[in-house]
Amino acid sequence: MIDMNCDLGEGYGRYSVGDDNAIMAYVTSVNIACGFHAGDPAVMRKTVDLAATAGVSVGAHPGYPDIQGFGRREMNMDPEDVSAMIQYQIGALTAFTTAKGIRLTHVKPHGALYNTAARDPLIAQAIARAVHALDPDLILYGLSGSELTRAGRSAGLKVFEEVFADRSYEEDGTLSPRHLSGAVLAESEALDQVKEMIEHGRVRTRTGAVIPLKADTICVHGDHPSAIRLAARICELLHTLSPNSIKGRREFHENHSD
Amino acid sequence: MIDMNCDLGEGYGRYSVGDDNAIMAYVTSVNIACGFHAGDPAVMRKTVDLAATAGVSVGAHPGYPDIQGFGRREMNMDPEDVSAMIQYQIGALTAFTTAKGIRLTHVKPHGALYNTAARDPLIAQAIARAVHALDPDLILYGLSGSELTRAGRSAGLKVFEEVFADRSYEEDGTLSPRHLSGAVLAESEALDQVKEMIEHGRVRTRTGAVIPLKADTICVHGDHPSAIRLAARICELLHTLSPNSIKGRREFHENHSD
Amino acid sequence: MIDMNCDLGEGYGRYSVGDDNAIMAYVTSVNIACGFHAGDPAVMRKTVDLAATAGVSVGAHPGYPDIQGFGRREMNMDPEDVSAMIQYQIGALTAFTTAKGIRLTHVKPHGALYNTAARDPLIAQAIARAVHALDPDLILYGLSGSELTRAGRSAGLKVFEEVFADRSYEEDGTLSPRHLSGAVLAESEALDQVKEMIEHGRVRTRTGAVIPLKADTICVHGDHPSAIRLAARICELLHTLSPNSIKGRREFHENHSD
Amino acid sequence: MIDMNCDLGEGYGRYSVGDDNAIMAYVTSVNIACGFHAGDPAVMRKTVDLAATAGVSVGAHPGYPDIQGFGRREMNMDPEDVSAMIQYQIGALTAFTTAKGIRLTHVKPHGALYNTAARDPLIAQAIARAVHALDPDLILYGLSGSELTRAGRSAGLKVFEEVFADRSYEEDGTLSPRHLSGAVLAESEALDQVKEMIEHGRVRTRTGAVIPLKADTICVHGDHPSAIRLAARICELLHTLSPNSIKGRREFHENHSD
Repeated sequence: MIDMNCDLGEGYGRYSVGDDNAIMAYVTSVNIACGFHAGDPAVMRKTVDLAATAGVSVGAHPGYPDIQGFGRREMNMDPEDVSAMIQYQIGALTAFTTAKGIRLTHVKPHGALYNTAARDPLIAQAIARAVHALDPDLILYGLSGSELTRAGRSAGLKVFEEVFADRSYEEDGTLSPRHLSGAVLAESEALDQVKEMIEHGRVRTRTGAVIPLKADTICVHGDHPSAIRLAARICELLHTLSPNSIKGRREFHENHSD
Repeated sequence: MIDMNCDLGEGYGRYSVGDDNAIMAYVTSVNIACGFHAGDPAVMRKTVDLAATAGVSVGAHPGYPDIQGFGRREMNMDPEDVSAMIQYQIGALTAFTTAKGIRLTHVKPHGALYNTAARDPLIAQAIARAVHALDPDLILYGLSGSELTRAGRSAGLKVFEEVFADRSYEEDGTLSPRHLSGAVLAESEALDQVKEMIEHGRVRTRTGAVIPLKADTICVHGDHPSAIRLAARICELLHTLSPNSIKGRREFHENHSD
Repeated sequence: MIDMNCDLGEGYGRYSVGDDNAIMAYVTSVNIACGFHAGDPAVMRKTVDLAATAGVSVGAHPGYPDIQGFGRREMNMDPEDVSAMIQYQIGALTAFTTAKGIRLTHVKPHGALYNTAARDPLIAQAIARAVHALDPDLILYGLSGSELTRAGRSAGLKVFEEVFADRSYEEDGTLSPRHLSGAVLAESEALDQVKEMIEHGRVRTRTGAVIPLKADTICVHGDHPSAIRLAARICELLHTLSPNSIKGRREFHENHSD
Repeated sequence: MIDMNCDLGEGYGRYSVGDDNAIMAYVTSVNIACGFHAGDPAVMRKTVDLAATAGVSVGAHPGYPDIQGFGRREMNMDPEDVSAMIQYQIGALTAFTTAKGIRLTHVKPHGALYNTAARDPLIAQAIARAVHALDPDLILYGLSGSELTRAGRSAGLKVFEEVFADRSYEEDGTLSPRHLSGAVLAESEALDQVKEMIEHGRVRTRTGAVIPLKADTICVHGDHPSAIRLAARICELLHTLSPNSIKGRREFHENHSD
């Protein structure tokens, strides 16, 4: 049984990105930008409403305070500042889930913050503790096998080890840097990789080694048509592997939260 | 029985304003900036902690998204955008009160947003409904006799009619514009004005007329020594008028929330 | 002889708007966003390079400091602050024209700042004087017959009275508010309106009156295909009316600057 | 003959920092914040006017886009984005020097950008080339012996090797990290260090070694009274060492620019 998640609500003011509606059919949870790297209050409200209507689980997607860089530029922030920033963004999004009458189920850091938290234990712990202090029932999403999911468990949180369908892995379990040849997989390779992850809990790395990899949630994207098609194919695959491997929307998280 | 409130947490990054500690001794509630016109996540957390330690009631002080202008420049925003912006800021601050284990008791719009909400029924209603949708137990602070407190009552919220000690009033109940002679009162005049407000529920306007004015809370400031001294004198006066006129901290709001 | 201008460089970070390349074929001057309501340093540099290659005149398009609102929300700014903000933005864009070896030819305020400057003499004068103090050879673009072009002439600047092809006019020479029926013209009506403006210096208002209207430059848009098609049709019309009515690019401004 | 420089104009909106007037008596050049890490258009204009009146040389002090972090948090920016950002900020400040009728003489990166440029050749080159493309007569200030001054010379710029009076040095010529014991010098030690730098072109490191160090300009601060007093003492020392060691204001840069 596996979750499929997607980043959503990445517009800002007049600007929009991707088709939030199209991807909704294939995911069980969405991560909504909180106004620091993308999103603004009006976009956040609208996206929460969309997700509530679709019945998917809603999580916060906090990032660095850098809309121009879309949260993809690492910033050298103090762990204490990261902690406060995480709580601020989760709180802001919670206003809209509360007003809509739904529950915030999870938190997934965005972009450069996600990557920093995957390898830096101090930042990972700052995030995990900040989330736990707000609501110990929140699920923390992080790169599978990373410092972030480790810190989440230490802090007493349920964690979802996250995997990527169309990115190759290095032997240490990190994603291959995009500039390397073979870092981004074609659709058929991506489907094979997902199958291997789900059925055997392992992945063949870019260099040909086989390493164990736990997969609680798969990240898919909705920002271009080929990404949406891949999401549809993965969804199909998951149902083939096992009719129960991907559950219908909100009940999924409710079961996991028990 | 009357509340005394003060705006707090108005620093930003390296920048600081006023002495948040000094004024704390004289107020029963504080309004904390939420990162749009002042404040940042670290400042907000620190200020919530300070207020929790002091035992005063903690409210949100949302403003226009304009740190450079300190939220004092009116912006022509759509009521729907104001609504989303209000919920965002309240939610963000609530993260810190939740993490600290205290309750958010009230909301007071800041600066130009406060003024716009005092006279514009659409903005006033947008704010009142946004607050109510988040938490119907929140108290809405607004200029005494204004569109904002009217809208708050219509939305089903408890409201606090706010008065100012050291500002003169016009005959329509608005504050005299600062550029007019006599708009800002000297300390002794301010104390007389407070006495008149508390004992008789009225105020003598700048032009000499006497108008009724309800006073649930008095706004004081902590950003310069003379303001802190005035706050101390008002506090003294209130205890003289009646030992019960100003109540000790949090219990005050708890009684009012019944 | 008339200029055709278009707003350009309205992307921001990862976000983009319209097709800056497509409209370039039909305009003689472009107004480039300066980072306050849209645009960032990288976008500005790229847009200046694009315009230099196309050989069109490059102007600054300063706006309110409000990327989320795209500079369309009026802000109550002090004229002195507007003046400093205008110079800042012009200076910032000039860095890129200087580095590219071309000259900045004009300034056109954006959005809400354009509208405020059209009717508020103090803001209009602040802008005109700020532009003149930087470079008295800059041409100031403003709504035809407005306070802004009046202020520009008083300050000693050459001004371009700007007209709109597809917007109807009120009897006082202002644009009809968009929510009114008939405020936005269909393509054929827009072409008739341009013909009337060019040949007779007048326009038929939304209410049917005929008022004089000077047209030095026509504003066209590149943010959707129908706008680009209208620009192409206007361009065609201008060449039909007179082969010299629209001049080839940069020489146009150079002649006008004499 | 040596320059003394100070960072200035570090306020923002309502917020202010230090006493820009007090330090002015002791410096020959000032570096004015450009709105990205501090400063806003109104503050920049006012600071340029102040510096022009004092007759000191005016330079740009560009930083990372991070007012909350005061430009002290390193951001992982692409060299091309750094280049555009540098030109943007220099251009913006040049608007105010142009309007005031004075010349911009130099550029000194701020905070984390200064430190990154001191050790990262790609960022250093991006900055040096960006400055040169705007105006080859600008002097580039950088940490003495760093990648930045090296890149400046390669780009064809005059550079000023900058030294710090009250900070200790490591054996590789970098500043000792502030958290190390002995990293910040007392006043008398600072004066001894300046004397050694000026007279012998060398410095005794924190670990006791003696390394060569070229000093074209000394950085002093105006943000607290003890810093201003140190600046006064250094100024005094320089005049003692040689009456011509520090020259009177603008003429100094004019001579250097020949």
